[in-house]
Amino acid sequence: MDNRKRVAISVGDLNGIGLELAFRNHLKISNFVDPIYMIDREMTSQGAKLLDLKIPKDFKTVENIGDFFKISPAETSSKSGKYSYNSFMKGIEFVKDGSADSIITLPINKEAWNLAGIDYKGHTDALRDIFKRDAIMLMGTPKMYVALFTEHIPYSKVPENLTKEKLYNFLKNLYQVIPNIEKIGVLGLNPHSGDNGVLGDEERIIEKAVDKINMEIGRELFSQPLVPDIAFTPYMREIYKFYVAIYHDQGLIPLKTLYFNEAINISLNIPIVRVSVGHGTAFDRAYKKDVKLNSESYINAVKLARDWKI
Amino acid sequence: MDNRKRVAISVGDLNGIGLELAFRNHLKISNFVDPIYMIDREMTSQGAKLLDLKIPKDFKTVENIGDFFKISPAETSSKSGKYSYNSFMKGIEFVKDGSADSIITLPINKEAWNLAGIDYKGHTDALRDIFKRDAIMLMGTPKMYVALFTEHIPYSKVPENLTKEKLYNFLKNLYQVIPNIEKIGVLGLNPHSGDNGVLGDEERIIEKAVDKINMEIGRELFSQPLVPDIAFTPYMREIYKFYVAIYHDQGLIPLKTLYFNEAINISLNIPIVRVSVGHGTAFDRAYKKDVKLNSESYINAVKLARDWKI
Repeated sequence: MDNRKRVAISVGDLNGIGLELAFRNHLKISNFVDPIYMIDREMTSQGAKLLDLKIPKDFKTVENIGDFFKISPAETSSKSGKYSYNSFMKGIEFVKDGSADSIITLPINKEAWNLAGIDYKGHTDALRDIFKRDAIMLMGTPKMYVALFTEHIPYSKVPENLTKEKLYNFLKNLYQVIPNIEKIGVLGLNPHSGDNGVLGDEERIIEKAVDKINMEIGRELFSQPLVPDIAFTPYMREIYKFYVAIYHDQGLIPLKTLYFNEAINISLNIPIVRVSVGHGTAFDRAYKKDVKLNSESYINAVKLARDWKI
Repeated sequence: MDNRKRVAISVGDLNGIGLELAFRNHLKISNFVDPIYMIDREMTSQGAKLLDLKIPKDFKTVENIGDFFKISPAETSSKSGKYSYNSFMKGIEFVKDGSADSIITLPINKEAWNLAGIDYKGHTDALRDIFKRDAIMLMGTPKMYVALFTEHIPYSKVPENLTKEKLYNFLKNLYQVIPNIEKIGVLGLNPHSGDNGVLGDEERIIEKAVDKINMEIGRELFSQPLVPDIAFTPYMREIYKFYVAIYHDQGLIPLKTLYFNEAINISLNIPIVRVSVGHGTAFDRAYKKDVKLNSESYINAVKLARDWKI
């Protein structure tokens, strides 16, 4: 009997590196999970030809994902955006109707989604709408995880999104889905966490949200706002393995600086298991014979989909 | 004949770790430079007693820095803030009148300056006013340097400070003081550098400033806005050793995550040589017998004051 978890794999933007990752790692990941790829046979063949690779044995695909198109390496196109969206939605369907246990998503191009008239800012944003839940974007490796309080919004919109109520709800959701973490470092917003108000005062909001949730939990799970630029020094990383970043780059700069190749992206607080690679479409490396892709993040994503343990 | 460079050392906030660093490294740095410490004998004795250390041989001090006070480890106080300010100003005087070749500053507490009624946000801010020049704050090590376009301002004030004119002037000043760098990575402001406007559009401003200065210089010295969260991956750090960060934490998070103990702070574009340690007052480690301080940054600062070569 086959005990492997069935994993739906959405192929991401076909003008990027996703399909090559899928081909090259199919045999390896089949040891861990039973993958089924959210791509038509026609597009699979076209991609394999362009990559000068044979379609791997037992490479299960599906039909009727969407309109076929000519793959153009590194090109941002509405057709490719639409197809990657359909591939993702098909994967969600598979998990929802029980045809798969979880979904692994390969990287999409956000601008291509935009060109295709898809309003979502990314996978996590779409999941939020599909499940009507505040999906939480968590990125990392077992050495260091970062949960993003705000993610794909402009820099200037972060302060208006930082309210006590919103942050409290975020921390509460986080606690409920991963209750067994010992302590979580919550970052401040301003340089030096505001230096007691001299450089900004949003840290007061963060303190209040932290106090409220810690009081409810009955222990100091969440830290008071850490000074951002020293929160990830070797010394601090011995204290915290798990952080809450107030904005995208605050958490992802240190994570990718340290663990770019290994990091994966996990959606928490939704009813399904969804894991993604931590990197993007890497258009500059797509369909290039002289470039060897790094598969660490993809393999880590597959292992997490198998174990579902943070 | 003594060929050593004469260096004025301002002692920083005496409730922090500065004085212990000065004592413990005096013998070593005297091999590189001829240090004179901007502290009264009275305060020197008090500090030595509290640290249970002997005042090192040939530890040259000055008189009349300011009002004496009782050192209170880890306390933010207006008296200590005032004294650290006076120590800094005395060091500047020494360099201005030729009594020293350069100044090395030990860390101050910005809130203590604030309590003492000193309006500056830090050393660099004060230097800007004293010399009426747009001092540039550069932090790093020979492995990686980051110049900060904005520094000690609240997070929310960054976008309004990012104008084409201001950034252009900043890049021009930077080029003029360190003309021999091969290429400099300029960061975007928004997540994914805005994903072509989907997540913010300040990158257009950055592009225009970069285009203008590169055109004038006649080569692509400054990069187009790099995607912030992947700008410091190992791969990118092979391409760039020198970055321009649009805001404080964008540059200092990756720098301190990688090189916390080694990094130093250099003021460029002012008529004197001023170098500082990269860390703060470390109140949590001040005057503690069981804590061994790391002197790497201080030693690196002294070496840079000796060589003045980036």
